[in-house]
Amino acid sequence: MRTEGLSINLATVREQWNLREAVEACAKRGVRAVAPWREQVAVIGLEESARVIKGHGMQVTSYCRGGFFPAPDASGRQKAIDDNKKAIDEAAAIGADCLVLVVGGLPEGSRDIAGARAMVEEGIAAVLPHARSNKVPLAIEPLHPMYAADRACVNTLAQALDLCARLGAGTGVAIDVYHLWWDPNLDAQIARAGREKRILAHHICDWLVPTRDLLLDRGMMGDGVIDLKRIRKQIEAAGYSGPQEVEILSSEWWKRPGDEVLATCIERYNSVC
Amino acid sequence: MRTEGLSINLATVREQWNLREAVEACAKRGVRAVAPWREQVAVIGLEESARVIKGHGMQVTSYCRGGFFPAPDASGRQKAIDDNKKAIDEAAAIGADCLVLVVGGLPEGSRDIAGARAMVEEGIAAVLPHARSNKVPLAIEPLHPMYAADRACVNTLAQALDLCARLGAGTGVAIDVYHLWWDPNLDAQIARAGREKRILAHHICDWLVPTRDLLLDRGMMGDGVIDLKRIRKQIEAAGYSGPQEVEILSSEWWKRPGDEVLATCIERYNSVC
Repeated sequence: MRTEGLSINLATVREQWNLREAVEACAKRGVRAVAPWREQVAVIGLEESARVIKGHGMQVTSYCRGGFFPAPDASGRQKAIDDNKKAIDEAAAIGADCLVLVVGGLPEGSRDIAGARAMVEEGIAAVLPHARSNKVPLAIEPLHPMYAADRACVNTLAQALDLCARLGAGTGVAIDVYHLWWDPNLDAQIARAGREKRILAHHICDWLVPTRDLLLDRGMMGDGVIDLKRIRKQIEAAGYSGPQEVEILSSEWWKRPGDEVLATCIERYNSVC
Repeated sequence: MRTEGLSINLATVREQWNLREAVEACAKRGVRAVAPWREQVAVIGLEESARVIKGHGMQVTSYCRGGFFPAPDASGRQKAIDDNKKAIDEAAAIGADCLVLVVGGLPEGSRDIAGARAMVEEGIAAVLPHARSNKVPLAIEPLHPMYAADRACVNTLAQALDLCARLGAGTGVAIDVYHLWWDPNLDAQIARAGREKRILAHHICDWLVPTRDLLLDRGMMGDGVIDLKRIRKQIEAAGYSGPQEVEILSSEWWKRPGDEVLATCIERYNSVC
């Protein structure tokens, strides 16, 4: 089965394998791209992570994740900026195509979403020179509106692209179908993202009906209602031909053997993506 | 405490009281507006419901609900149209200001959200003459994107207003803060809704952090992160001065005595809305 153009976000098997085991399992099945999380890198160390990933000739489609810029006070925001710079360094060290930014929601106790959005913009602007000099593009990931309060107050592709337009070179977007499939402006904004050369990553999974949990009930491709092939066609028409990165945060799939999850990802990538 | 300008959507106390009991409890506390659901009307009958509501001189800010237009086949869609006409008749009989439309999501087995949206538009167009001749405005309620698959594929105020613009007289929008608070275009679209004379209802509750259930974990005003006063100001600036209708679907609040829920609604209406 085809594995070219497929990337596995290692959160998909985070409960089954550590980074080394996951990369080895991917390599064994012919998968040539992965996307690790900082937490996974921390477990075996940055140097060893880079060695394992490069040793298997793996493309790193995303490094997850920076962001979470809003905070109630200036020192909290500075702490976030410092931590994002560290994330940029790590992304550079493992040779990631981009650092994904889950930008953060409302600061604790706040109801000011416009204010949170301003903090996000300031935070990204503050780390952008460091990202540019390390040649790590920042992939702003618009998250589903159900995460606006506590994870990301950037919630549509249009909003993320407006942000990129203001911030300039070195910024782009991660298009995750789970977050964006419902948007009536999706097609137009994917085309715009292509014209503006902002597409840095394409993440896939599926939206289940019913969805039982806001965070950990993402579906395997084909098990939900997202028209994955149609969206992929739009993304390719917009000029992006990079890998489709499978990112499934699911308490259900985490219960199954890693090999089964990986085999299913490959199978569904071939049949429905 | 002020009760003028407050309406209670009777779903808020649906597990505690039937329609008669709920209306009597509202009247006793000086609340002069309610919004009943069809299921509640059905329990005691349409005639008796109208008698109780009119007997207490209650304004009916919404009748809940029509919609659910998409279906896999033409006969299913016709059935929805027929049922919506019946809902219009009921809304007229109880003297409702509008019939709220929760438009419906994807037909079973479908991944075609653009197709579902077309079915919604066709369905509303099919019932609109009946609504006009009965003088029942149709309030399209954009629902939060987390309901796009199974409840409503109209998910932003802009999308609802575009729909109204195509459908014409007799259509408008219900602005529910729970569904729309996250939208970066909210202010602009509220202003547009005012200019286009489309605001038919203003629903309030709150978005809790964390939200534990996609459907039945709406918050009491003040318990979440929505800046209710700010949004109300925008809506009034857009020319709408009708009641704020409290609609809380919450397995938590349904466990408490109806009187406590009602008293809390009134208190929070005075303090945070």
